Amino acid sequence: MSKDPLVVFTPSGKRGRFPSGTPVLDAARKLGVDLDSVCGGRGICSKCQVQPSYGEFSKHGVTVAPDALSGINAVEERYDRIRGLKPGRRLGCQAQILGDVVIDVPPESQVHRQVVRKAASARAITMDPATRLHYVEVAEPDMHVPTGDFERLSTALREQWGVEGLRADLAVLTTLQKALRKGAWKVTVAVHTDGGAPELLAVWPGLHEGGIYGLAVDVGSTTIAAHLTSLETGEVVASAGIMNPQIRFGEDLMSRVSYAMMNPGGDAEMTRAVREALDKLAAEIAVEAQVDPATILEAVFVCNPVMHHLLLGIDPVELGQAPFALAVSDSLRLPAKSLDLTALPAQARAYILPCIAGHVGADAAAVALSEEPGKSEDLVLVVDVGTNAEILLGNTTRVLACSSPTGPAFEGAQISSGQRAAPGAIEAIRIDPVTRAPRFRVIGCELWSDEDGFAEATAQTGITGICGSGIIEAVAEMRLAGLMDENGLNGSPEATGCDRMLAEGRTYSYLVHDGSADGGPVLTVTQGDIRAIQLAKSALYAGARLLMDEMQTETVDRVVLAGAFGAHISPLHAMVLGMIPDVPLDKVSSAGNAAGTGARIALCSVAARREIERVVREITKVETAIEPRFQEHFVAANAIPHKTAPFPELHKIVQIPNVAFGAASEATGRRRRRR
Amino acid sequence: MSKDPLVVFTPSGKRGRFPSGTPVLDAARKLGVDLDSVCGGRGICSKCQVQPSYGEFSKHGVTVAPDALSGINAVEERYDRIRGLKPGRRLGCQAQILGDVVIDVPPESQVHRQVVRKAASARAITMDPATRLHYVEVAEPDMHVPTGDFERLSTALREQWGVEGLRADLAVLTTLQKALRKGAWKVTVAVHTDGGAPELLAVWPGLHEGGIYGLAVDVGSTTIAAHLTSLETGEVVASAGIMNPQIRFGEDLMSRVSYAMMNPGGDAEMTRAVREALDKLAAEIAVEAQVDPATILEAVFVCNPVMHHLLLGIDPVELGQAPFALAVSDSLRLPAKSLDLTALPAQARAYILPCIAGHVGADAAAVALSEEPGKSEDLVLVVDVGTNAEILLGNTTRVLACSSPTGPAFEGAQISSGQRAAPGAIEAIRIDPVTRAPRFRVIGCELWSDEDGFAEATAQTGITGICGSGIIEAVAEMRLAGLMDENGLNGSPEATGCDRMLAEGRTYSYLVHDGSADGGPVLTVTQGDIRAIQLAKSALYAGARLLMDEMQTETVDRVVLAGAFGAHISPLHAMVLGMIPDVPLDKVSSAGNAAGTGARIALCSVAARREIERVVREITKVETAIEPRFQEHFVAANAIPHKTAPFPELHKIVQIPNVAFGAASEATGRRRRRR
Repeated sequence: MSKDPLVVFTPSGKRGRFPSGTPVLDAARKLGVDLDSVCGGRGICSKCQVQPSYGEFSKHGVTVAPDALSGINAVEERYDRIRGLKPGRRLGCQAQILGDVVIDVPPESQVHRQVVRKAASARAITMDPATRLHYVEVAEPDMHVPTGDFERLSTALREQWGVEGLRADLAVLTTLQKALRKGAWKVTVAVHTDGGAPELLAVWPGLHEGGIYGLAVDVGSTTIAAHLTSLETGEVVASAGIMNPQIRFGEDLMSRVSYAMMNPGGDAEMTRAVREALDKLAAEIAVEAQVDPATILEAVFVCNPVMHHLLLGIDPVELGQAPFALAVSDSLRLPAKSLDLTALPAQARAYILPCIAGHVGADAAAVALSEEPGKSEDLVLVVDVGTNAEILLGNTTRVLACSSPTGPAFEGAQISSGQRAAPGAIEAIRIDPVTRAPRFRVIGCELWSDEDGFAEATAQTGITGICGSGIIEAVAEMRLAGLMDENGLNGSPEATGCDRMLAEGRTYSYLVHDGSADGGPVLTVTQGDIRAIQLAKSALYAGARLLMDEMQTETVDRVVLAGAFGAHISPLHAMVLGMIPDVPLDKVSSAGNAAGTGARIALCSVAARREIERVVREITKVETAIEPRFQEHFVAANAIPHKTAPFPELHKIVQIPNVAFGAASEATGRRRRRR
Repeated sequence: MSKDPLVVFTPSGKRGRFPSGTPVLDAARKLGVDLDSVCGGRGICSKCQVQPSYGEFSKHGVTVAPDALSGINAVEERYDRIRGLKPGRRLGCQAQILGDVVIDVPPESQVHRQVVRKAASARAITMDPATRLHYVEVAEPDMHVPTGDFERLSTALREQWGVEGLRADLAVLTTLQKALRKGAWKVTVAVHTDGGAPELLAVWPGLHEGGIYGLAVDVGSTTIAAHLTSLETGEVVASAGIMNPQIRFGEDLMSRVSYAMMNPGGDAEMTRAVREALDKLAAEIAVEAQVDPATILEAVFVCNPVMHHLLLGIDPVELGQAPFALAVSDSLRLPAKSLDLTALPAQARAYILPCIAGHVGADAAAVALSEEPGKSEDLVLVVDVGTNAEILLGNTTRVLACSSPTGPAFEGAQISSGQRAAPGAIEAIRIDPVTRAPRFRVIGCELWSDEDGFAEATAQTGITGICGSGIIEAVAEMRLAGLMDENGLNGSPEATGCDRMLAEGRTYSYLVHDGSADGGPVLTVTQGDIRAIQLAKSALYAGARLLMDEMQTETVDRVVLAGAFGAHISPLHAMVLGMIPDVPLDKVSSAGNAAGTGARIALCSVAARREIERVVREITKVETAIEPRFQEHFVAANAIPHKTAPFPELHKIVQIPNVAFGAASEATGRRRRRR
């Protein structure tokens, strides 16, 4: 043969000719093919596994002879014997190219492999972590060339991996000597590169096979959720959540700001509380996943601005008053220990996403990173409902953001029979439009309350209260059943003809469930509950409207409901309530914990960090607190507009008549509603 | 006038023409004249004071009219009223150029002012500190441009001072809000730039006038010395020293390494001890100097390799055995808090000079920085004597370095009547060559023991022991007085004809002082003391000889004695002993604590840091521990060569005869010696 063998790599399609005898890994590197290798071609890490194809490949114009690669060698035999190689697989560093060949790089052998996300609509995460493992052979010390162990390691990393200008924290420098000697000058190092100089985060003797991990943490006002994630595969190996212990200082953000304002040292007290909780969570999640905490080398945090400041140890009082000035708005790269995360190694790194504005935090940035409204052709409204709602509206032309103080009503707080989402809580309610009798489902049981076996199935948990999604459905269903008017005023038993309407003072409550016979609670929806939900949903809707005004639109193309709440809420009922603008139901999707997903994306990809840092600068911030139209929209949104479910043609719900029980409205006749 | 006014600045001689009305500071900046300004020309910091000259200046070719500058303005009047301006001084930012003028920039108005060092031979330190103050006006927060306080400060620093890419530790980020508001968005910041991104170290409301400081610390095996130094002027505002508490783990370095080897956790114990001592020292020196510890923003450390590792928390055992591998050899830039320096603010920085080799540490590097052997035309031998001796030999062609384990004998330890240099210690001794009677001086008294009033003057301290310089002189004088032979063997009373030679077992001691009548000690120089000094001086000399071999020379041009010991030793006696090679006495100089001076230079100048980082790479290291010739030189150097003082023509000392009391040598006659 006069020509060197031709190699074609799939799926990239990259191709080139190499001298006979070239290892596949070398060819891949020269062509820029995404083929992983931790040991740098020494035949010990097995990350560079490839799948050669034999036979005719007209698509690639290559005919592959059976001897296109060198035979299985001793290194591969040994590896196969001890660990097992899948049929047909070769180690890219051992197999040499002898003739024309097509070589497939399976996903698990790609550095920039994609992590499939659960939400089908969402893009995959492309692995591009800040922290990577390298196996490296370090020169032994020589009295006549008296450089330090660290300097020889740096040289080896530069020469073998192109890592320039390595730095190290004392915490890892102190471990270097022993690891190098134990590994006989062969070690695996974790190197972190995120904008600045590459930083040595860990050293293990020989080949480290215990993996490396990071924590993606969503620090919410009410709950803290963490995902322990492999920095090699992007896989979530454990998730855990706890209540934010700052709740004892105030349920919502503004009461925590007030606490800091009224109590000297109150901010430090709250900082300590959240840091202790995070540290405990980190320790627990490592135990749960059976992961060595010494391998957790990174943590990424997303949170709203008040939590952001309290986590950092910055007094949040400026966020409680105009001009709502953030102490720091850009992303932060910090030693994790500066957040008192003692469960992680002292040299672990923390990354905190940028805040968008004084009321629109790193959590909103994380939602933007996860849901990418700026890459949507449709005009998409993304609503992340928590104690505060983060709202994004945008498409490829422009993205707007605001936050809206919905309060904790949507989380079941400030509701007379409310409770947090937990087993025993009513999470779904339907009211029969004729009999006005409710049927419901509780968390922990798949049956509806009017189905056989319900009583037995719920005997354990009891029926203890109504959680956020339950109260929303209850209010919407009461409206649909003609039990309240568009102002949200509950009707009397006489006016409604429903004996479940109970007088309480001058107002009326709807009886959902009476468990008193069995010593359980009596669960009702009071006029006060309706008012709380009205305030919350008006705030949410007004925020969305404000962004729509700014965008000069009356409609949106689709709605994404994010957050734990968004995952459980019924879009239909949300629209009946007027929480979100009307769109066809199939244009409403749930993104789950989009903020947490954003944190996970930032954990797995430095490119994503740079992207969100750029994107937040391009987002137009709308400040609800000082915008007069917010108040106008808020007042206007107080009504519960739909006497019927929207888009009846989609939902097969017939219109029911207007009802009114207050002085301002007028009672009219009513019709039946079918579901 | 058709031409713009001509301005000549002195001492730089820089000149240029500027439009009438240009402030002097602006003209200086445009010409690159070294004129300080912290406030950036706002008339509040007073750092830009200049001294205009009036009258004829033929030298500069300028005739200065009395109205060459604008008149004293309100800002200057106010400043003069409140603070006082020296006669003739103007504020460079206020005085405007109206005609041809000669303007002198006094030393205190120069950024790169020179700090005069005490040793007359040494170069001045040019101020070029890593940490500088800038007064800056920050944009107020704006709800519609929701950047954080830190980001607005960064922008202001970039625009007003050209500081690009500012970073900040959480410790200072948390103080930012209050300082900005208290200063009404005008603050003074301390920015640290040493290779990496500029880092915000402190923020003060308004103009900060309390100065900023750094600690230059020489961490010796036996003593720790710190100099609190202004980072603006280079002035040492306080110095303090303490014993290294690690002494309790071992007097010399190798016994500390052994302690770490024999005791699990022993290295951590020693690390804790030295860090606690440093922290205490830092706190005390701030109190002594009445300096706010919050203004101490940097610390520079120099130390030998074992102390270097113990300070960093790295196990030193590798330094106790070949190949004497350092864990890290390059300079280190660390947060001071990673060394547990709680007396300094949490965001303070530490810099540690590079080590030259496993036995030649950052202290030797500091001596090289201070004494600059590589810039000497003469071949200079620099000897820093402590428990370990650091030895440098070089000139502009090449610099060699080694260390030599002299042990603590030169510090008065391991000597029967020895003590550390303290009041009451004999520091100088002369023995009359005829009567063999000693006379001596003790620390704390200027009189010799045979002078009137000595008894009264020393009544307070007593005569308590013999310190390092005293024992060296005693041994040398004993040799010159014919009381010992060239092998260091003391003679009997009979052989020497001296009744102060006291029998102790089979050997003889020389009686220096008998204080027993007053309840004081009997101070003698025993045969064991002579042996200890011989071992120490042989090690020192052998190290120097080894470097001379490597340099292929038999002589050196000059000798610099560094260290506290070097400052007190008599060069003549050192040469009699054979501690250092023979050179004319006027070619021996003392550099004082050269390692400490090197630390101070590195503290005051980033250019010096880069210089020493480069220089250590160019120094040829000679490892005494494995070099066979070291042992040869060591054995050969055991003798006390000079039966007479060297260079008699310089010192007017006549030769005295050879004496020998041992079997190997032969007693001969003797003559008188004159001093």
